This record gives sequence, C-alpha cells and structure tokens, in this order.
Amino acid sequence: MSETPEEFRTYRKEMNERLLATDNKVIKRFFNLDTNAYLDGALPAKTKEMLGLVSSMVLRCDDCIKYHLEKCMEAGLSTAEVVEIFAIANLVGGSIVIPHTRRALEYWNLLEETAG
Amino acid sequence: MSETPEEFRTYRKEMNERLLATDNKVIKRFFNLDTNAYLDGALPAKTKEMLGLVSSMVLRCDDCIKYHLEKCMEAGLSTAEVVEIFAIANLVGGSIVIPHTRRALEYWNLLEETAG
Amino acid sequence: MSETPEEFRTYRKEMNERLLATDNKVIKRFFNLDTNAYLDGALPAKTKEMLGLVSSMVLRCDDCIKYHLEKCMEAGLSTAEVVEIFAIANLVGGSIVIPHTRRALEYWNLLEETAG
Amino acid sequence: MSETPEEFRTYRKEMNERLLATDNKVIKRFFNLDTNAYLDGALPAKTKEMLGLVSSMVLRCDDCIKYHLEKCMEAGLSTAEVVEIFAIANLVGGSIVIPHTRRALEYWNLLEETAG
Amino acid sequence: MSETPEEFRTYRKEMNERLLATDNKVIKRFFNLDTNAYLDGALPAKTKEMLGLVSSMVLRCDDCIKYHLEKCMEAGLSTAEVVEIFAIANLVGGSIVIPHTRRALEYWNLLEETAG
Amino acid sequence: MSETPEEFRTYRKEMNERLLATDNKVIKRFFNLDTNAYLDGALPAKTKEMLGLVSSMVLRCDDCIKYHLEKCMEAGLSTAEVVEIFAIANLVGGSIVIPHTRRALEYWNLLEETAG
Repeated sequence: MSETPEEFRTYRKEMNERLLATDNKVIKRFFNLDTNAYLDGALPAKTKEMLGLVSSMVLRCDDCIKYHLEKCMEAGLSTAEVVEIFAIANLVGGSIVIPHTRRALEYWNLLEETAG
Repeated sequence: MSETPEEFRTYRKEMNERLLATDNKVIKRFFNLDTNAYLDGALPAKTKEMLGLVSSMVLRCDDCIKYHLEKCMEAGLSTAEVVEIFAIANLVGGSIVIPHTRRALEYWNLLEETAG
Repeated sequence: MSETPEEFRTYRKEMNERLLATDNKVIKRFFNLDTNAYLDGALPAKTKEMLGLVSSMVLRCDDCIKYHLEKCMEAGLSTAEVVEIFAIANLVGGSIVIPHTRRALEYWNLLEETAG
Repeated sequence: MSETPEEFRTYRKEMNERLLATDNKVIKRFFNLDTNAYLDGALPAKTKEMLGLVSSMVLRCDDCIKYHLEKCMEAGLSTAEVVEIFAIANLVGGSIVIPHTRRALEYWNLLEETAG
Repeated sequence: MSETPEEFRTYRKEMNERLLATDNKVIKRFFNLDTNAYLDGALPAKTKEMLGLVSSMVLRCDDCIKYHLEKCMEAGLSTAEVVEIFAIANLVGGSIVIPHTRRALEYWNLLEETAG
Repeated sequence: MSETPEEFRTYRKEMNERLLATDNKVIKRFFNLDTNAYLDGALPAKTKEMLGLVSSMVLRCDDCIKYHLEKCMEAGLSTAEVVEIFAIANLVGGSIVIPHTRRALEYWNLLEETAG
C-alpha cells in the first residue's frame, strides 16, 4: 500500500477544499448532506458508520472504505465487528470484494497502530 | 407493484428449492453460507440485517431489498429506522437508488399491513 | 411494456409523496438537490437533461431513463439527438445496455404519440 | 414470470428492428459487432456463449441472461454445465446474483420444455 | 497523484498499440467505433464529450475520466461547466463518486497548467 | 504498472493469511468455496478460469483479473484465446473496460516473460 492514513487524509482534505472553492452550490450542499446523514437519529451514528462501510465495500470504493474505517474506529468498533462487516460485504458483493477486503484489513491494522 | 409479499415468498421458495435440487455443491454451500452470515455474532442479527438491506439498496437489487425488509421487520425495526437506512443508501448510491426506494417503501408498507 | 407513461407518472408521484411524508430530512434535502442540479447554470438545462439521461442508461436504471426521457422531450430534443445519446450509452456501458435501450426507444415513441 | 420465451423473442426482435430503423450508424455497427464477437475463433462459439452468460449474470441483466441461455441451449450445453456457470456467477458476483439465478433457472427450464 | 498527464498519455498510447497489434478484429472495430461515436452528428462533438465524461464518472473509471477531461478541455469547456458535470455525476452516482471527483479536479487543474 | 507479478502474489498471500487469521468463519468458508468453484466438474477447470476472467473484467476488478490471468496461463491458454476473452469483456461491459484491458494485456505479457 503506497499511502499512509496521514497521506490519505491530507490529500482528501486538500482536494475537498479545492472542490468547495469552485463554489458550485450543488456540490456544496451534497457534501453538507453527506455529513448530516451520518449523525445520530433514529439510528445511532455508530450504526450509520457501519452502513456506510458495508455500502462502500459492496460498491468497491477503496477511498470510501478508508474513510468509513476511520469513522468506525472513532466510533469504537472492535476488529471482530469490523471483520463481520467484511464478511457480509463479501457475501453480498461476491469474490470481487476480496481485493478491497485485503486493503481494508491492512488499513484497519494501520489505524490500530496509530491509535495504539 | 405487481407482486404481493405472499407471491414473492412463494416464487422465491419454489425456485430456491429447484436450484438446490440441481445438486450443485457450490450453490448449496453458498446458500448455506448466506444464511449463516446473518446470525448473531460479534454483531447482533438485527444490525446484520440492516447491513444486508443497505447493501441491497446501493446494489439496486429489488428482490434482495424485499427479502431484507422482511428480515428487518421480523427484527423489530421501526419505520423511522428503516427510512434512515433508505437515506444513507440514497446518499451513498445516488439518485439511481430513488426508484428502488419508492418500491422499498411500498413493500415495507405492505408488510406493515400484513403484520398489523 | 406493462406500464404507460401515465401509470409511471402516477406511481412515481404517489410514492415520492409517501417518501417525503416520512419526514426524513436527508431524503427531503436529497430530493430537493436532485431538482436543483438540473436547472440552468453554466450549462443549460437541456444539456443537463442529456447528462442525466446518459448517466441513467449506463447505470441501467429504467425508471430514471423514463424520467429523463420525459425531461428531454420537454426540452425539445429530436429523436436523432436522443438516439445519439443511446449510442454513446451503449458504447460506454456495453451490450448490457441494449435491453434498456429497447425499452427507452419504446418509451420515447410512446411520449411522441402522446405529444403528437 | 410474466414473459414466455416466445414473448421475449418477439419484443426483442421488434424493438431491435425499430432501433436499427433509426439509422444511427454507431448503433448499427455496435449490433453487428455484438453478433461477430460470438462466432468461432481461437475459442469455439460454445465457449463464447458461456462467457456471455456468466458476464450477463454478474452484471445482473435478466434480458441478456435469457438471450445467452437460448444460445447456450442451441450450443448443446447440459443443465449441469449451465448450473456450474450459475455457481461461478454467484460466487464472483455475490448473493445479489441469486434472484437473477432463480429467474435464469426458470427460463432454462422453460427452454427445455419447448425443446423437449 | 502518481501519474502526470504526459505519463497517462504515453502508457495509454503504448498499450493501445499493443492491444491493436494482437490483431483481434472485434477489438479493432470496437476501438474504431469508440472514436466514431464522439464525432459531430445530430449532437455536436462538444456535447458528446460531456456525455462521455459524465458516464465515466458515474461508472467510476478514473482513466476514462482523464481521457474525457482532455477532450473536454480541447473542446473548450470552462471550469464552471466541467464542475457542473461533476455535480450531476455526484448526484446521480452518489457519494462513492466523490473520490473520483477529487482526482478529476486535480487532473483538470493539471491540464489547465499545461495549457496555460 | 507499479506492481510486478511477484509483488502482487506476495501482498495477496500475506493479506489473505491475515484475513484468515481473524478467524471469521464466514470469510474462511467463503475463501474455501472460492477455491472449490473453479475445480474440474461438468465443466473443465480451464473453462471455469475463462469464466472467472471474463467476469472479473466486466466487473472491472484489476486484482481479480491478474489472479485469473495467472490461472489462465497455468491452464495453458494461448494469447489469441485470452485476447478473445478481452474482446467479449469489452463488448459486454463497454469502453469502460478498455483501461482494464490495457493493464490486463500488460500483465499477461509480464507473465509470458516470466514463464518464457
């Protein structure tokens, strides 16, 4: 893996700022909505982050997976819980999810080291 | 909607039996695994059904959505909780998820009537 | 095709109302954003509807295709223009787009009859 | 299933003719290429039809599946062979392929009856 | 981003030549068709490039996005126009398109520098 | 291409081991099933690897493509045969498969050199 969690966050932050600086209202409101959707509601934020993670996995978006793994760690998920999400993602999405699962586990382990 | 929950279940059951009757070991074991993945573990079955529902929505599989809606109702989810799952699915998967959300809400309402 | 343009519109309208009646803020704002994204801006609304149509085709969402075909007809697109959008969708998305193209042409022809 | 093999073929043929009648060169050549790709070459036509079937399944296109099932029957595939293709499609594409597999088996059985 | 526009073009060109050198007729004709689909017709080439870009974004193909961004710059699109295409792609395709949008904006900015 | 076949295999092996070491039963059985699905049966293993390759291509999973290319080489496929699989994948999956085809051919050529 070529990218550390720190590098991922820096690139993500910088490019999000550049995108918002284009001053496109639809993109601004979409980003805002994306943040709001994961707040506590009828379902707790922790559950919503799990929903975000499994969706990112079945849709096979590595950067989205990394982002939600960070949120899942902040929300206090255990490795066993995260791996059960991986299992469902593999079953629903099939063996094409396996390479993303390998990278997801590697990133989760990197986050654990940093957090340790 | 042309199909009632009853019709959906009947067709699903009959064709699953026909598929298993072909005696293909990989399919048999895959179906078996599909059942096991949603049992209580590090995560409770209820959470796993939510994961199954949101995955089915972002992958836009109407029959999978119906199946997981039934399981979510059995698991005791409220309408407000289910609709928050719809919201995340729409945000992650985009406006192409909207038509599936319309059908999902209709089916959920049908299940409520039957259960009522 | 089992559904007329009139039936499609009625179902769509009724279920959208039911969805909005659940009073989920994220869904409400997402629907609102979906309307705003296609208004005149740096690009004219007509161009944006074409973008919506081709996106719906490559993502193979029949209901989204119908919706954007209606908008494209309102925006005054000719059949030759619509068919060129079909062509690009087929090329980019591959032969799995063909069945959706058949249904799209049928729906476009139905809209022409109604408009005639 | 609402549609017989006969109805499927009739609709498919009529709409393909209507599409070709629009006289769009890209679509004409794309359809032509689609036919040529499955002819005998380094790989026999029979193998290519299997490739077309499994691709249609993992991409979850019911009409494409029906079309390739017809071709696979013409090419002399046995039910055991077709079901092994189903198994690989389920494993690669995940449990979201299951509903399409149910409909695929039903259609295959209908084709067997007609051929019988 | 590890790859400059120049490196992208070089790799793309070299591998396309190697692919065509395999002398597979279907691939040759498919590549040829791919070029023809974007020529002026009922719709101008500029509009077609926008259709190609939005399709590539909702299907989340970074290399296809880069290619169409180059074509869009050659066709004279402004940044505001390109960003409106990004907005529609995000809305239709959902938040999983965001990481591709970050990379798309970065590439567009690189193209602007080169062109400047 | 940043990764040699050797690097790909090493990373794949290491991370698969780490995944299996999490001791999640569903993942273990899914991996096991994934191996079994490609064994000789009604269809020979060689045909099944071709099915795995074409599925990986239309689903645009580069790592899956590499894996099945290795298996196809072990199974004795010729370059002409592999390229015909590429052709069908491009036709079914569309021009978004082209970038994956470029990388697939490069990887195939690397495998040929190593095997040579």
